[in-house]
Amino acid sequence: MPDIGKLLWPRSVAVVGASSDTDGLRGRILQIMKSHSFAGPIYPVSRSESVVQGLKAFRSVDELPAPADLAVLIIPAKFVPQELERCGAAGIRAATILSSGFAEEPGGAGSALQDEVRAIAERYDMAVSGPNAEGFVNTAAALCPTFSPVMEAGATPLIPPDGHGRGQVAVISQSGGMGFAFFDHGRPKDLSFRYIVTTGNEACLEAFDFVDYMLDEGKTDAFLLLLEDVKNLATFKRVAAKALAAGKPLIVGKLGQSDAGSRAVRSHTGARAGSPADYRAMFDEYGVIEGRDAIEMIDIAAGFLAFRSRLPAGKRVGICTSSGGGGAWVADACVAAGLDVPLLDAETRALIDVHLPSYGTSQNPVDVTAQAVHARGYAEFARLVAGSPAVDGVIVVVTGRYPRLLVGDREPLATLARETAKPIFMWSYTQPAAACGELLNEAGYPLFTHVHHCARAMRLMADYRAARERLAKG
Amino acid sequence: MPDIGKLLWPRSVAVVGASSDTDGLRGRILQIMKSHSFAGPIYPVSRSESVVQGLKAFRSVDELPAPADLAVLIIPAKFVPQELERCGAAGIRAATILSSGFAEEPGGAGSALQDEVRAIAERYDMAVSGPNAEGFVNTAAALCPTFSPVMEAGATPLIPPDGHGRGQVAVISQSGGMGFAFFDHGRPKDLSFRYIVTTGNEACLEAFDFVDYMLDEGKTDAFLLLLEDVKNLATFKRVAAKALAAGKPLIVGKLGQSDAGSRAVRSHTGARAGSPADYRAMFDEYGVIEGRDAIEMIDIAAGFLAFRSRLPAGKRVGICTSSGGGGAWVADACVAAGLDVPLLDAETRALIDVHLPSYGTSQNPVDVTAQAVHARGYAEFARLVAGSPAVDGVIVVVTGRYPRLLVGDREPLATLARETAKPIFMWSYTQPAAACGELLNEAGYPLFTHVHHCARAMRLMADYRAARERLAKG
Repeated sequence: MPDIGKLLWPRSVAVVGASSDTDGLRGRILQIMKSHSFAGPIYPVSRSESVVQGLKAFRSVDELPAPADLAVLIIPAKFVPQELERCGAAGIRAATILSSGFAEEPGGAGSALQDEVRAIAERYDMAVSGPNAEGFVNTAAALCPTFSPVMEAGATPLIPPDGHGRGQVAVISQSGGMGFAFFDHGRPKDLSFRYIVTTGNEACLEAFDFVDYMLDEGKTDAFLLLLEDVKNLATFKRVAAKALAAGKPLIVGKLGQSDAGSRAVRSHTGARAGSPADYRAMFDEYGVIEGRDAIEMIDIAAGFLAFRSRLPAGKRVGICTSSGGGGAWVADACVAAGLDVPLLDAETRALIDVHLPSYGTSQNPVDVTAQAVHARGYAEFARLVAGSPAVDGVIVVVTGRYPRLLVGDREPLATLARETAKPIFMWSYTQPAAACGELLNEAGYPLFTHVHHCARAMRLMADYRAARERLAKG
Repeated sequence: MPDIGKLLWPRSVAVVGASSDTDGLRGRILQIMKSHSFAGPIYPVSRSESVVQGLKAFRSVDELPAPADLAVLIIPAKFVPQELERCGAAGIRAATILSSGFAEEPGGAGSALQDEVRAIAERYDMAVSGPNAEGFVNTAAALCPTFSPVMEAGATPLIPPDGHGRGQVAVISQSGGMGFAFFDHGRPKDLSFRYIVTTGNEACLEAFDFVDYMLDEGKTDAFLLLLEDVKNLATFKRVAAKALAAGKPLIVGKLGQSDAGSRAVRSHTGARAGSPADYRAMFDEYGVIEGRDAIEMIDIAAGFLAFRSRLPAGKRVGICTSSGGGGAWVADACVAAGLDVPLLDAETRALIDVHLPSYGTSQNPVDVTAQAVHARGYAEFARLVAGSPAVDGVIVVVTGRYPRLLVGDREPLATLARETAKPIFMWSYTQPAAACGELLNEAGYPLFTHVHHCARAMRLMADYRAARERLAKG
């Protein structure tokens, strides 16, 4: 097995095909890499330019001052095999190939090129990602060999200023555009990304090879995977079992669930999508979580990171709301997600009832009314509901419209998040202000804006716990 | 039938229970009303204060300088009947009752109060909304008798500066919190709201009475309804048929689809939720569209407003993408939504193929590749796909991350939106910049950020057209 560490953590990088033209993809890669603070040398390799974007360029990888750890290849497909060969001969042991025109093309020529790439990688024991990928990002190293506009410096810091110590996610995606879209959707929610790796056609390394490396590394706490196919069933089984044992959820978007989708992935990365039912059975066996879209997958990951040591012990949810309609909506969404919304026990109800006006109810959904929430905040009621032996988790319906109500509740909420043995999910039925999302995140709660995502997150977290318990029992 | 015009378009308003304490709901209503530019006089009615928030207060509605058109009642439930009686005697012919403590309460006392309210309203032929509601908003009149924090002035202009001449929506919701949440979610997407009416327990006027009035008024082009029950089947049938004939879609969120949800709506507004299957059958008969959550309903409404004169003639969709993975995701979402994604005809494919690199494809999804989109923009490809006789509508996968790509495409996109006979939907797989949403909106396209909402919008618009055609055939 080649050393993925050389690929993801190179000390030096050669960009083969680098260009001064930052309107083109070949120029954009170098521009984006340079805009971040990667500590090692970056060597442009160009046949036509001696200085590229202010950096001394080299005519060939074998003319570098020292062998680079990683080669980034963005040259026409037909030149890729000979260039990869040259890399191998020059002592380079890792490459990411962004060029398109391989097995995704109709006709056999592209596939033949891809076979050559695989053979060269094997011969030199090189860690090769791609071809037909969009590169990767290692946030801790500030290394961004990609042309994805999402990774332009300045738009969003690579790492949240405050990661809340809540752990990190890694994205591994065959699709480049969608892979970086996860980062784009997740960072405003203060999710901390360790890696975004796009794997394209997966001629050599495939998604689960990267998962395997990251599990061994031990710094990634949840995985967002966008798969068009699973290349190697044995690798999947071994790595998925390892992830489940480690309690690192694999949240997967599987593309190609329909005929048209299968056609699309075939044309996109040469993938054979396979049968959705077969994949589902395989995923279920290993506790792999299937997401419905990127935004939902981000929300599920945020739920896991916040409460990964306190996954729900079952599917019974207590709903705590200041909006009667909002509570009804959550209740319907929970039942649709396969959760139970039981009546609360009499003892808990009595503890809640003393605070409610006559038109409130402690039945479940617990409608504490806007009046009681204004008087006492959300935390006290959430704690009471979480204390009920009838529930395994709590969903709190909040309005994140203005921070003023939450500000006074900040400390009790943070204390509750630290102390609760059951996960507590917050859903805002109004469009939340950024300050509210941040306040709740800091207090320990990801703020959901989609009622179905919130309900599904709790359900999937309960399923995941059950899958781990099945595994532990053997 | 009482005159709903007196309720929604009063020339003067009395606020019964108005208070100087803007921390409480009774003070907040007046504060919010005063923060908007409603042209008529507002009369605070208070037993204890002679001046409320700078306005001269009156001890009773019968001491006003002239009978108000509308009374807003926010006083304890037990005083509501006598106060409503006083309003009727004073010549006031409309009231909105925000007080809680009626039929939603366990025990019979609240129900008895509600019966009294109904009897008084009937006796005086008053248009009464509520009780247990959160008031309403008439944006054109800048009238906001509600304590909803969403309606505080300054947060969002009531009416978009540029409504794109695309028509207006009205929200009618039994739930106050959720009702205003539609406005909150919809305004950032530049949706233009004419009314938000919260109806609470619907003791007198019910949701479809308001729909009826608004259909007659002819200024509302799509309805967002959040229902816990349908009080009067005959009214529903008559009004739903009228809306369908007028081509004004009713987009409904039906709460209480589960046992727990039914329990919640019973406690919330005293509603009997009924059987989901019965509701679904009833909705289907009249082309009523059922939404899954507020954000989806907003997106569906935006789709209708943009292309209401060009609803898809069938369920066949062409997908045009610069991200292969994004195209696969849309394809799967379309099939999940019941759309067909057929191969395009040879003639259209030939027209597209001349612009594609070898690793692109015109099959459908049409993967034009990032390279071709950078060179030619989205509009040209969207036009070619829309021209195919094999499709009834188009979904274009765009990245709204940065406006720079869209800016150059602005005019062709706007021209296409005007000229196309088939609806064209835009989905951004990245988190869109506000400027991109605005640019596309101005060009004529609502920008979807949820792939399933986009696919469902097209499907539901096709269904709606089919329902209208069935109606026309009798």
